[in-house]
Amino acid sequence: MTTFTYHRAFRIQWADCDPGGIVYNPRFFEFFDTNTWLLFEAALGVKMQELNARYELAGIALVDAQGNFLKPAAFGDDVELASRVREFRRSSFDVEHRLTKDGDLLVEGSETRVWAKHHPTDHERMVTARIPAEVIAKFG
Amino acid sequence: MTTFTYHRAFRIQWADCDPGGIVYNPRFFEFFDTNTWLLFEAALGVKMQELNARYELAGIALVDAQGNFLKPAAFGDDVELASRVREFRRSSFDVEHRLTKDGDLLVEGSETRVWAKHHPTDHERMVTARIPAEVIAKFG
Amino acid sequence: MTTFTYHRAFRIQWADCDPGGIVYNPRFFEFFDTNTWLLFEAALGVKMQELNARYELAGIALVDAQGNFLKPAAFGDDVELASRVREFRRSSFDVEHRLTKDGDLLVEGSETRVWAKHHPTDHERMVTARIPAEVIAKFG
Amino acid sequence: MTTFTYHRAFRIQWADCDPGGIVYNPRFFEFFDTNTWLLFEAALGVKMQELNARYELAGIALVDAQGNFLKPAAFGDDVELASRVREFRRSSFDVEHRLTKDGDLLVEGSETRVWAKHHPTDHERMVTARIPAEVIAKFG
Repeated sequence: MTTFTYHRAFRIQWADCDPGGIVYNPRFFEFFDTNTWLLFEAALGVKMQELNARYELAGIALVDAQGNFLKPAAFGDDVELASRVREFRRSSFDVEHRLTKDGDLLVEGSETRVWAKHHPTDHERMVTARIPAEVIAKFG
Repeated sequence: MTTFTYHRAFRIQWADCDPGGIVYNPRFFEFFDTNTWLLFEAALGVKMQELNARYELAGIALVDAQGNFLKPAAFGDDVELASRVREFRRSSFDVEHRLTKDGDLLVEGSETRVWAKHHPTDHERMVTARIPAEVIAKFG
Repeated sequence: MTTFTYHRAFRIQWADCDPGGIVYNPRFFEFFDTNTWLLFEAALGVKMQELNARYELAGIALVDAQGNFLKPAAFGDDVELASRVREFRRSSFDVEHRLTKDGDLLVEGSETRVWAKHHPTDHERMVTARIPAEVIAKFG
Repeated sequence: MTTFTYHRAFRIQWADCDPGGIVYNPRFFEFFDTNTWLLFEAALGVKMQELNARYELAGIALVDAQGNFLKPAAFGDDVELASRVREFRRSSFDVEHRLTKDGDLLVEGSETRVWAKHHPTDHERMVTARIPAEVIAKFG
């Protein structure tokens, strides 16, 4: 388990909600994705839009995502999303996300992503690559 | 495993795609949710907008969602999403989703939902309820 | 022209962008809608989720929206959206939105909304109502 | 006014709707955008994902969008969106969109787009170009 955690406080907006007046579940996966970008920017000190160029990446491609919706988040709620890398492996890693309201856990999420590069000769293909030790070190 | 399966063929639109030119992952969870509504409408013969009234439901509330992204789906791809209930339990059930392109599996998804009613005295609260046998029977 | 202006600074996220790497136009209309809620909350001192109850509204319903996309906003851009009511009429009003990056105007938007109440006997219908003078006064 | 019109019949999904139970306005702009792609594909006989390559385009870039929301579209409604090019100019054109339900007009939309190419030496810049006569002819 790494120690570097990214915290983002935000408001649940009308745009996030479904006819039940609560967050429509795909929006939680947007919240997770946005936090993963912000987590990497903060940990690595590289702007999100420069991450791929800096590490010669095709991307940190998502291969698995999961959400457990324990309690609803409603229009106007002030929430906090805390995200950190649970585990780095050779070329993949898991990010865990915890959405809380006043300290109360509403949603738990998990993403598995791979460190993906372009294939050396076939640019359309992606291949996984070893995550640099310097990258992992910055997550604590 | 129930046998009633809902198939939906559709095109990946510009609106679904991210800067990588492929489907942005939260959109897959939209695809799943839409298919679950259509699956219930088709199996039960009740219009989606009348489902809650017909069964005195607060909703078929999502408690868990998962996606495995095996291969990307790109702008303009013609895909098919096949969805069915994997298992009914007393008051919850699992829906499995398989997104294919020309028979090739791109994404596997899973949702766990509960048969939720309004609390008899506190309308804001939801309580789970037993899924009627007649409902389960219609899924084969 | 009222004087109360709501300013929101935010980052363009991956979730906002299309395969061109720039904001997908419907997202700008989300930005506008979110700012209108925040503008009313700030001007009236009423939480967005309590606005309808406080003024016995069905909503501040959108009847017209427009966007002029002068320059693209790209992934990672830090932008600011400034919003204010251009004009209040008897039961409708116009909100203008200006999205800038480093002071450079990228997008101009406009919304026309109505002060809408539920019909006294047919709750499903909405009727427009006179905007209270106390509401208008708070926008300066 | 050109005569080639693209008609798309679809259902309003849960994913499209806001806490009021009706279509959230940015979704209408998605509907418009999707129809413009489908209109061009149908009129030109070129797959949407091959349009840019076929005409050496950077894109048919949106510069203005507008929606008039006359009546709400609700969850489960079966609607039809009819779209056509109102006018072609030298390097820009207007697309008009009409969303109906059982022949009743719910929303009118309008997009202005430009025929955009990459600048010959600075690939990041876009420049407008003359729309080929053969393209215009195919819209009738």
